[in-house]
Amino acid sequence: MHIFIAKSSGFCFGVKRAINLATECSKESNEAIYTLGPIIHNPQVVKRLEDSSHIYAKKTVDEIKAGTVIIRSHGVRLEELNAAREKGLNIVDATCPFVKKAQELVTLLAREGYAVIIAGEKDHPEVQGLLSYGIGAVKIRVASHPDELKDMPRKKKIGIVAQTTLHAEKLQDIVCFCLGKAAEIKVFNTICNATSIRQEESALLAKKVDRMIVAGGRNSANTRRLFEICRAIQPMTCNIEEAKELDSDWFEGAESVGITSGASTPDWIIDSVVKRIKEIESLNKKQGGRADAV
Amino acid sequence: MHIFIAKSSGFCFGVKRAINLATECSKESNEAIYTLGPIIHNPQVVKRLEDSSHIYAKKTVDEIKAGTVIIRSHGVRLEELNAAREKGLNIVDATCPFVKKAQELVTLLAREGYAVIIAGEKDHPEVQGLLSYGIGAVKIRVASHPDELKDMPRKKKIGIVAQTTLHAEKLQDIVCFCLGKAAEIKVFNTICNATSIRQEESALLAKKVDRMIVAGGRNSANTRRLFEICRAIQPMTCNIEEAKELDSDWFEGAESVGITSGASTPDWIIDSVVKRIKEIESLNKKQGGRADAV
Repeated sequence: MHIFIAKSSGFCFGVKRAINLATECSKESNEAIYTLGPIIHNPQVVKRLEDSSHIYAKKTVDEIKAGTVIIRSHGVRLEELNAAREKGLNIVDATCPFVKKAQELVTLLAREGYAVIIAGEKDHPEVQGLLSYGIGAVKIRVASHPDELKDMPRKKKIGIVAQTTLHAEKLQDIVCFCLGKAAEIKVFNTICNATSIRQEESALLAKKVDRMIVAGGRNSANTRRLFEICRAIQPMTCNIEEAKELDSDWFEGAESVGITSGASTPDWIIDSVVKRIKEIESLNKKQGGRADAV
Repeated sequence: MHIFIAKSSGFCFGVKRAINLATECSKESNEAIYTLGPIIHNPQVVKRLEDSSHIYAKKTVDEIKAGTVIIRSHGVRLEELNAAREKGLNIVDATCPFVKKAQELVTLLAREGYAVIIAGEKDHPEVQGLLSYGIGAVKIRVASHPDELKDMPRKKKIGIVAQTTLHAEKLQDIVCFCLGKAAEIKVFNTICNATSIRQEESALLAKKVDRMIVAGGRNSANTRRLFEICRAIQPMTCNIEEAKELDSDWFEGAESVGITSGASTPDWIIDSVVKRIKEIESLNKKQGGRADAV
């Protein structure tokens, strides 16, 4: 079986940076180390950090008494950051620099008097964080589709910032809708380039293989979107978190398999997926051999 | 025959203002009065101003020695305006206030360091005027379709202003394209509301009639666009400048006719179109009567 791995799979820049900061931190510190929410959206990596580096994910600052708190790659709400500061916790900011930039731009737009719209999913932690940075804004809205803005009255000027992992078309739809809602629109296209490159590469790969595997956390929005994109091209696409989820029957008749992954999927998970496919293949061959002999 | 006239037909605000300024001017002044280019895009109105108010359209300031010069509704290039000033001509600015606003916004965007794009038709006099207001901008581009921007390199920030009579969808296409070309986009939606209302109303009217008449100058971009919109809905659509162009054969079998007009078409042209339709109808009836009698 031919195995193809998307060139852009594995940790993105922001995730790599966050994990490096966390592991550095655990080497240097004797204190307890926590993250506010999972540091990245991959349960296996979070568990590994817990087991090997004693870094524990906590939901709120209230749950942390003292020590070091790492701000996760998606960022946190400003109130949480301030609460950690007031408590005197040692703060290590692992917010992805692209997310950080988007946070600053939300503040800037609010300060410049724009009615701010965040193009993104309202329940995503990055978006929840972004919302909190609209300091002084009367009202900030979140929308992943123009329908969510239907009740918005006409504005003098609208400022738009995007969730870094948003699909470009969704931002376009929202911007087009807003063109009819204000005379002035300022858009910061904060969609991370790495996300769109990964999506394009994965789509191309999905076109040429018989089976497509999207490795990544089920709580990861960018993994979910990759899965949707690939499945629309190759119906035989699956989303797994770990190699052991792969079933030999699923590969029946396949001559090629493509592997891509979300931005928070480590290389060792991709390696284990490759290993598992090879095991399945060799097992299938042996069983095929026995069947012939019978 | 039922005759329906689009509610929004006739002079738009800017055209009405320009014609009023010109006629006021001719009443008050004993000097020669000129316009730089036709004051509006309607040859019949331009001729009437010439005949009754002795206001003559000239192509350039060079052709004017002294007297009053009226700046047409679409505006002129800044160089022309400055040349008229330097010559000591008495300037009456009849530029549509919406076009004036767009000119100011081009200057503002250029001053703020945006790579300026004018969404519009590059040969239209309004666009030619707008281009001249990008003072200090390294390069200003004009595009009515993203294809015209294909060779544009990536920019830090792009500022977009629209020709006031542009179709909203064209602006959307250009904005969407630019979202992939810069991290920051500032759009001033300078499309005049009256244009889109007129287009929508005309489209609705074209749906319910057997014949559709678009009255307006053949040199008028907004008339041409109205004609295209109506013809796509009702193939029996014609564009006329004057009532006498209407032919009785064209109405054969029709039970209803809709009339709309470009923003520079005066009410008296619409009135004469209605009169002509009634004449044709009564003529057809008489001929029908005679035919029956034979």
